[in-house]
Formats: sequence, structure tokens, C-alpha cells
Amino acid sequence: MPRLCMISLEAHPQLVEGLVRELAMEALPLEQRCFPDGEHYVRVEGDCKDAVVILMADMRNPDRILLPLVFLADLLHELGAQKVVLVAPYLAYMRQDIRFKPGEAISSRSFAALLSAHVDGLVTVDPHLHRYHDLAEIYRVPSLVLSSTELMADWIRAHVELPVLVGPDAESVQWVQAVAAAADVPYTVLHKIRHGDRDVEVSMPELDRWRDHTPVLIDDIVSSGHTLLETLHHLRTLQLPQAVCVAVHGIFAGASYDSLKSFGVRSIVTSNSLQHTSNALDLTPVLVKGIRSWVQEYM
Amino acid sequence: MPRLCMISLEAHPQLVEGLVRELAMEALPLEQRCFPDGEHYVRVEGDCKDAVVILMADMRNPDRILLPLVFLADLLHELGAQKVVLVAPYLAYMRQDIRFKPGEAISSRSFAALLSAHVDGLVTVDPHLHRYHDLAEIYRVPSLVLSSTELMADWIRAHVELPVLVGPDAESVQWVQAVAAAADVPYTVLHKIRHGDRDVEVSMPELDRWRDHTPVLIDDIVSSGHTLLETLHHLRTLQLPQAVCVAVHGIFAGASYDSLKSFGVRSIVTSNSLQHTSNALDLTPVLVKGIRSWVQEYM
Repeated sequence: MPRLCMISLEAHPQLVEGLVRELAMEALPLEQRCFPDGEHYVRVEGDCKDAVVILMADMRNPDRILLPLVFLADLLHELGAQKVVLVAPYLAYMRQDIRFKPGEAISSRSFAALLSAHVDGLVTVDPHLHRYHDLAEIYRVPSLVLSSTELMADWIRAHVELPVLVGPDAESVQWVQAVAAAADVPYTVLHKIRHGDRDVEVSMPELDRWRDHTPVLIDDIVSSGHTLLETLHHLRTLQLPQAVCVAVHGIFAGASYDSLKSFGVRSIVTSNSLQHTSNALDLTPVLVKGIRSWVQEYM
Repeated sequence: MPRLCMISLEAHPQLVEGLVRELAMEALPLEQRCFPDGEHYVRVEGDCKDAVVILMADMRNPDRILLPLVFLADLLHELGAQKVVLVAPYLAYMRQDIRFKPGEAISSRSFAALLSAHVDGLVTVDPHLHRYHDLAEIYRVPSLVLSSTELMADWIRAHVELPVLVGPDAESVQWVQAVAAAADVPYTVLHKIRHGDRDVEVSMPELDRWRDHTPVLIDDIVSSGHTLLETLHHLRTLQLPQAVCVAVHGIFAGASYDSLKSFGVRSIVTSNSLQHTSNALDLTPVLVKGIRSWVQEYM
């Protein structure tokens, strides 16, 4: 096993501390600030020579994180790091994976190419693989994809009696199916018609079958929260019990979390890929186990 | 001459329109917005096949501009553009050109490498070349450096009687010297000791010689404005006439412009590299002349 160092770029302290402890890493202090004109300054203290450096980043705000991340990756190479591995529990820019209209930028591909030019490996959890089947289609560096499915299934089994998992749209089928199988509970998936970023129409066949069940909405990313709100609205008109929402990545843009809470849900639960008050699924063991064997094999 | 197209990424409309008109370019409409999670969407309408596309960008806010710029450059290549030339009248990230302390990222180098991986050429005006002597030391693509010296000299000759040009610090020597020579007026340069980003001490030898002259402060970039304020403060204690400030790039971070105005200067003048109420020097002819011959030779 190579010597492992850790640098956190706004990552969740719980994950950072867990990885440092469990993988016996050396935590390298990072000095980070902005000049008055908004340009980033980063400085690494400590010795990373010949080490594999885990650069762990919160990618919730790609604009703010991208340049410090690139500067750090280049710097670590210059300082003699053997490899720089980006650990981004939430991986941004996975959604535009096709030109829906002529002339659209396929941002997922550009973003992947950009990151691949500066880091030597990528570790993430449940990336939004919809039309892509494998990160290798766009990331040129070795990647490790970890899953929160078991954590979700465990949580649902422990906290919800007589659940029916509900996927808010076709893109969520893969998550819902996998979690339902792991938890050994039934599921259904809604149909969604998107009229605009914030304008989504939802229809739900057959929900009468689950009238006594607690609906557990499952999705990979909660961003604007509008899809979940639409779905909750629909479930309410069907007079189902209050829903539980479980998601991997809680971005909760703007006031979306408050909107969801005030709508009246039983609970909203996310993994700690992004630090948030809704975090209830700790990814530390998943990351520790995955990174330990993957680094030995690939870095 | 290849067919020229223009896309503006928040660039000054005066410059964009001037270039389109003078170089008979086709302006390609750009659709640009952010999703609720802050990810960028860009879409180009019109045909850029086999064209040299001028991608003109305001780089005042590098975090916000970088990803749309990269997505656009990649997209234009995918759509068949022959070359993509970034025209950034103000070029960001030129100041950290050395490790002042061990472990510091040399952001100028990383930023240049990143842009060089996505565009085929770079045109800019008076970049902050301090320790670098040539953009080719960090930019791997052909670059054209234009100068606002003649515009500044013309403005000073037309608007200031009996001027003495004043450079606020050693880094400004190159600007002040060149403008003084072009305007055929005297100059002096101050000594500056920097204690921190916002804490700068200025000393000024020999200014008694210029007691009847109007001091004209010259600098390349006004960012926080603190250097200029310090200098103005010093000039005031010496009971010199009210100063004129002339700069190439007016970033004016935060409330710096109001602070400078309220201090009591005769006028503050910038080029239109960045759109601002202080713009008085129109770079259009400089850009038109430079780009016309450079594109023919290098693109």
C-alpha cells in the first residue's frame, strides 16, 4: 500500500475524518482563500512526495470548487505526489449527457475531460449514469463507482413499516429497483413530463394498490426539489399516508429543503455525500472499503 | 481571410459590436443559463462550420465564466469550427507567477494550461506580465498581446495640463514608462511595501519636484483599489493638486469605485476591456487592427 495523504476541499468533515482514521492517512493542511477580485489562492503544507493524495471535494457548487481543485491537483503533482485521486462523493455535471436540441453543449463530456486532464483517478458514489453506462465513456482516468443502495435499504427496513418505494420519474428506475431488491420491498415508478427547469408534470398509474403503504420516494439527487414536491402533491391527492423521502445526494438548491419540510413529509433522508441537516446515511464504511482495495490495485 | 464568427460571453457590447462590424463577422446567438443547482447550460445557434470563431469573454469573474467558456470552446470544435480564438481583453489569473511561500499553487500556470487545452489562440490587452516576459511561457497556444498605451497617452494629452505620471508601485514601472514616453510627459514611480492583501504601505521620494503638476496615477489593474487609495492619500498629504487615475482594466471589486470617487479624485478613467462607468478609452480600433492581421497569419 502506498503512503496515503488527504486534502479536503470543503468536503464533509465526518467523511474526511473517517477516511483519515480508517486508512491511516496523513491529513495535509490546506490554506485556501480568495483575493478581493475573486481569484483563488491555495497552499498545501506538509510533505506529499511519492504519496497517493486523496483530494476530497464537495462538488455542490462547481463554479466555486473547480479552479481550486485544478490548482491543487497541479500543485500536488509539482510537489512530487505519485498520484492525485479525486474523491467526489457527489459528482457534478452528469445530467447533460446528450444534445436535446442542436447546438447544445454536452457539459458532462467537457467537464469529465477537464477533470481527467488534472487528476489521476476518480472515486464517486452513485453518479447520475442515465444514458452513459460507465464513467469510462467520458472520464479518461480510472474510476471507482460506489453505491449507497445497501445503506438506503438498511435505513428503510429499520425506519419504515410496510413501505412502497416510489421513483419520481423514469430516470430513477435504476435506483428504486436496486433499493427495493436490497430491502425486499415493493416499488413503483412515476411518469414525468418536463415542460421546463421548474415546470414538471407527474402522473402515477396504479397507486391505489398501495393505499395502506407508506410511500418512500427514492431519487439520486435532490436539486431544486420540484420533482419531489410534484410527486408529494400527487400522493396527497391520492390520500396516501405521509411520505418519506430518501435520496443519495442532497443539494437542496435555494429554499427547496424548507419547501419540502413545510409540505408535510414524514422525513427527508440523504447520505452524507453533501453535508446537510438531512444526512442520515453515513458513507464512511462504503468509501473506506472501496478506496482501500481500489488504490492498491489501480494507483 | 477565413470566415469569422463571433460569440460573446458577457463581453462588452461596444467591443463585440465594433469587431463584428469592422471585421465583417457573423454574430452567433448564444443561449446561456444556469440550472437551479448552479450548473451551466450553453447552446449556440447558427453555423460555425469551418469558421474561425472569436469567443470574446469578460474574465472579471473567473469562477462564473470558466466552465461556460470551456463548454463553448469544446462545443464549437464539435460543431466543426476550424479554430476557436479566445479574446479576453482582460486576462485573469496573471498575478500568482511564483511561489512566494513553499506549497503555494502557481495559479497563473494552471489557468493557462487549462485554457490552452480548450482554445486554439488567445488575444488580450496589456496582461499583467511581471515575472513572465511573454505569454508563451505559460500559454501553449499562439497569443497576441495588444497595448492600450497609445490610447492612454492620447487621453492624457487631451485632458490633463502639465501632468506628471505616477506609478503606484514597482510592478507598474513598465506601464508608466511606456505611457510617459508615448505622451512625452514626465513620470515617477512609488515604492510599495505589502503587508497583506488589503494592507499596503506606500512611500514616495522626490515628489516635491512636481508640486505644480497634476499627478496622473497609472496602473494596469484596479482590483480592490487599495493601492490607489493609499497613493491618493499620500499625494494629499503632500498638498499636490487633485489626481487623475488612469488604468487599463477596471475590476473595481466591492465598493472600491465609490471609495475612490469619494476620496476626491479629479477623474478615474479606464479602457473598456471590462464594462464600467469609468470607461473612457475604446479598445475597438486596437482589437480590430490586431485581430485582422493576426488571424490571417496564425489561424
